[in-house]
Amino acid sequence: MTLNLRSDNDLYGHINNSVYNHFIDSIVNTYLIKYCDMTPPDTPQIGLVVSSWCQYFSSLAYPGMLELGMRVSKLGKSSASYEVGIFGEGNDAPSVVGGYTHVFVDSVSRKSMPLRSEIREGLQRLVNVPHGSKAKL
Amino acid sequence: MTLNLRSDNDLYGHINNSVYNHFIDSIVNTYLIKYCDMTPPDTPQIGLVVSSWCQYFSSLAYPGMLELGMRVSKLGKSSASYEVGIFGEGNDAPSVVGGYTHVFVDSVSRKSMPLRSEIREGLQRLVNVPHGSKAKL
Amino acid sequence: MTLNLRSDNDLYGHINNSVYNHFIDSIVNTYLIKYCDMTPPDTPQIGLVVSSWCQYFSSLAYPGMLELGMRVSKLGKSSASYEVGIFGEGNDAPSVVGGYTHVFVDSVSRKSMPLRSEIREGLQRLVNVPHGSKAKL
Amino acid sequence: MTLNLRSDNDLYGHINNSVYNHFIDSIVNTYLIKYCDMTPPDTPQIGLVVSSWCQYFSSLAYPGMLELGMRVSKLGKSSASYEVGIFGEGNDAPSVVGGYTHVFVDSVSRKSMPLRSEIREGLQRLVNVPHGSKAKL
Repeated sequence: MTLNLRSDNDLYGHINNSVYNHFIDSIVNTYLIKYCDMTPPDTPQIGLVVSSWCQYFSSLAYPGMLELGMRVSKLGKSSASYEVGIFGEGNDAPSVVGGYTHVFVDSVSRKSMPLRSEIREGLQRLVNVPHGSKAKL
Repeated sequence: MTLNLRSDNDLYGHINNSVYNHFIDSIVNTYLIKYCDMTPPDTPQIGLVVSSWCQYFSSLAYPGMLELGMRVSKLGKSSASYEVGIFGEGNDAPSVVGGYTHVFVDSVSRKSMPLRSEIREGLQRLVNVPHGSKAKL
Repeated sequence: MTLNLRSDNDLYGHINNSVYNHFIDSIVNTYLIKYCDMTPPDTPQIGLVVSSWCQYFSSLAYPGMLELGMRVSKLGKSSASYEVGIFGEGNDAPSVVGGYTHVFVDSVSRKSMPLRSEIREGLQRLVNVPHGSKAKL
Repeated sequence: MTLNLRSDNDLYGHINNSVYNHFIDSIVNTYLIKYCDMTPPDTPQIGLVVSSWCQYFSSLAYPGMLELGMRVSKLGKSSASYEVGIFGEGNDAPSVVGGYTHVFVDSVSRKSMPLRSEIREGLQRLVNVPHGSKAKL
């Protein structure tokens, strides 16, 4: 659960659509750092974002607390796709759902390589999280 | 052509992926304001973003100039989809391509309605722009 | 207490200095909305920021939780100055201290006017907060 | 000259005050990189921001072009203070004036040290720029 910022609101008084991608980027990387032994910038394997997407169902606004839920929608040999739901405080239905795909590469050669076991094990735990559930950040 | 900001760079020294959505949002709305008679917040019809997407091919970094190109990838009865290419200065291949879909609604009732003629005519001009071309903002 | 975002970090892996002003702006306005009956954008009196300042003592970084403390450093007839301390989680010494001055004006005429009693009473409570104390947002 | 972004606008339809610090940070660092041989992150000497300030005279808004002017207001033995004016396109009077102070330190020991000659010479050129003049970025 996190507070959004006043400058996140646009001239309609709602969080600007572009801002949600920062929340999605942040929760995914927080999980990778805390539970998958990824410690940027000195990690042997880094994730490159190749594509991202977002769907907007209803608007949210500062001041308000946001709740975020994260799941792994696809876990490949050298890639992972994440899905993040963004909820207004106390809401059961997400206002925004988005995600992105990481291809994992060697941090020096930048060639794609199979996920390290720490990353795979950490992400595996989120594969069966049901669509639309909330997790406390 | 616009300058990106130092704070756009992340800890790898490249523009954070989340930042590109702000550029895409800005060029589309600049076009709507300048060429489609949309003057927020006092316009009879507003566009709600229902979904967005982005693909990342190579990284860009501050300090550098960005060039942006925009086309309309789909023009529906009450909706429009935009595609924006983001190029490093002087590059022919885009580093990032993304876009989003607007559903146009009445600014009071929030019900979807056919595009006003000023918007349709303005957007029509960008329907046949070839994929991957640059336009000067 | 709030989470900062991954994109807040700059290429040195620390929160970019420019980002702190967003936190300062947000906590002050959250207080004004929650405790001073200021409900933008439909409030009879608005605060215009005339000047701001910030001092940086040590660096903070994503991922981490930030704690913010706020006090009113000066309460004038038609103006108020705020001071905000930003602390790394669990730290007693602030990493950043900044603030700004609001001149309150009529929302239509934009002429300065004495603070409404709701605002004055709300802000009065923070006048005697000691320098450097933390408050839970 | 640079374009501001749609998400820079706040709910009053003006650029949020916090956003200007990003422009100030960016023009100063662009000058340091281009004219003072500072090439982050692999530079022997880095500038730590110890304090910043900003004054707001009138509001600006997206969509619009911003013009920025920069001068060195104080050049010390191991520190430099910058002043940046931010102008709406075509305006003679700045809407915002702000700046900050850098203390230059060894990038490894983080101890303050005299400015390298490349930095001193680059900054010296901006010492006599009159207050309030514009430079093309």
